Amino acid sequence: MSPILLNGMGIVNDHSEYIEPEVPFKNPQIHVKNPHLDTMEEDILYHFNLGTKTHNLPEMFGDIKFVCVGGSANRMKSFAQFIHQELALPGNMDDITDICEGTDRYSMYKVGPVLSISHGMGVPSISIMLHELIKLLHHARCIDFVLLRIGTSGGVGLAPGTVVVTDKAVDCFFRAQFEQVVLGKVITRGTELDVGVSKELLQCSSELEDVPTVIGNTMCTHDFYEGQGRLDGALCSFSTEDKLEYLRKAYNTGVRNIEMESTVFAAMCRACGIKAAVVCVTLLNRFDGDQISTPHDVLVEYQQRPQVLVAHFIKKHLGLIV
Amino acid sequence: MSPILLNGMGIVNDHSEYIEPEVPFKNPQIHVKNPHLDTMEEDILYHFNLGTKTHNLPEMFGDIKFVCVGGSANRMKSFAQFIHQELALPGNMDDITDICEGTDRYSMYKVGPVLSISHGMGVPSISIMLHELIKLLHHARCIDFVLLRIGTSGGVGLAPGTVVVTDKAVDCFFRAQFEQVVLGKVITRGTELDVGVSKELLQCSSELEDVPTVIGNTMCTHDFYEGQGRLDGALCSFSTEDKLEYLRKAYNTGVRNIEMESTVFAAMCRACGIKAAVVCVTLLNRFDGDQISTPHDVLVEYQQRPQVLVAHFIKKHLGLIV
Repeated sequence: MSPILLNGMGIVNDHSEYIEPEVPFKNPQIHVKNPHLDTMEEDILYHFNLGTKTHNLPEMFGDIKFVCVGGSANRMKSFAQFIHQELALPGNMDDITDICEGTDRYSMYKVGPVLSISHGMGVPSISIMLHELIKLLHHARCIDFVLLRIGTSGGVGLAPGTVVVTDKAVDCFFRAQFEQVVLGKVITRGTELDVGVSKELLQCSSELEDVPTVIGNTMCTHDFYEGQGRLDGALCSFSTEDKLEYLRKAYNTGVRNIEMESTVFAAMCRACGIKAAVVCVTLLNRFDGDQISTPHDVLVEYQQRPQVLVAHFIKKHLGLIV
Repeated sequence: MSPILLNGMGIVNDHSEYIEPEVPFKNPQIHVKNPHLDTMEEDILYHFNLGTKTHNLPEMFGDIKFVCVGGSANRMKSFAQFIHQELALPGNMDDITDICEGTDRYSMYKVGPVLSISHGMGVPSISIMLHELIKLLHHARCIDFVLLRIGTSGGVGLAPGTVVVTDKAVDCFFRAQFEQVVLGKVITRGTELDVGVSKELLQCSSELEDVPTVIGNTMCTHDFYEGQGRLDGALCSFSTEDKLEYLRKAYNTGVRNIEMESTVFAAMCRACGIKAAVVCVTLLNRFDGDQISTPHDVLVEYQQRPQVLVAHFIKKHLGLIV
């Protein structure tokens, strides 16, 4: 597949900058930054319905090398089944069971070295999942893994269906930072993601048909309607021109898509020394509208693109594709 | 049941202040505050998989008088089945189907005049649901209804299992307000809830066995771990004493429980002129710990308490209990 130019607005796939994948990832161990954890007799990962006393976490999860997370439980189940097929693993892909079936907060599937987990919508929802996931990987003594968010988003100046690999995750003020409140005090964390993994993903896209991909900044908001400048919420106090001006400002700072989880995802991975990337497909171009009115089958195909891209990335790392 | 005194820290059920229920609610119509909606040919409620062209919303939802929302999809299905039984509605309660089954973002069940919807965890997740719910009720021309959040929470100085009916929803700085970002500008909305409905709910609790209930402030955070002063997250930079000091401060301002949705729920209902209340059971007393280690069957019973309370409230309004 040739380098991709989308309306002259995307960053092209650049083969010359391609960095050879490292197998395994240089991610030797997680830096869980909590001295209290060592003093706990048991750690109950409440929203996963798992615990250190009730489950043998090293045995269940110790071989994990790829952790993939996304908002929708159905989509993350489909992804697990897809990966099962792609890695030609033994057994029937329809027999995959939800490891968190005792709770409906999140769904979790393990297929070989790949863990697929849903995280719901928004920063608070993914943040609960990440705290428990990072502790899970720590308790399971996982090393040399990568954490990938595969999601959906609104595009900013991109054709619908374009996949955006996140350069910087920025907040609604276009700052590459995440504000975390700790005991009523605001602390700021950086949101840099792993440049090497992002470039590898871009390279992977160039080896695939029909996965148009760019690298760009991803804006993370705490609201889908007013926060993203949509005109179709229950509340809207601004004009079409106000909206377009905000989107143009976002575009001019390098924002190519908008979603609702990337800043805390990047900040927590960075704080814990985890290699991570964000790969989201755009379902619409926000300069053209707010409502997602694309036919269902087209949306389904769009949502498969990050999955196809990440599956290719995983297969390369496992040596299944040279 | 006698007035309840919990460790001397709760506000007692006060029969003398009891206000006779109004049937129907004086909530004549929703104030959807968005002039753009009138100009739209179609409104797709994307995360419900419903729309004004594809569904007859007035026919489907026009008779709704009680909208109950909660985080977990399973719990909101159980609640729908429970209400079906409580209202002695015709048909088999196991046949209740998810109106949003085409999507897994939210689940929605309708039983007679009661709508039961899940909203996931955190402000962004419930906010998407509320935008689409408020538009749904607007399109369906619903009048004279009440919106109740029935959830779970961490208690502050209360025995586990206590139900808290929210007086004021406050943020992590103990302010009764919600900050909404609109096009990169922060606007502040009030979070007052309906005093009459809260008092009615407290009265209902006094008519029930085993539903210990207080009225208190509810703190809404954007994070379950660091934001709520938990010592057991993947990241924790504070001491046990720091945590307890924050909880004491919260308690002294009237906070009796902590959850993750009440401020935006209160703010949006208030902005749209909707009568609303928040009813959450406490799963633990945060002064005593962070982990939810209570046996599963006890937690299940706790989670039924807000449902039992709200069912009683609904039955009184429908004249099924004098």
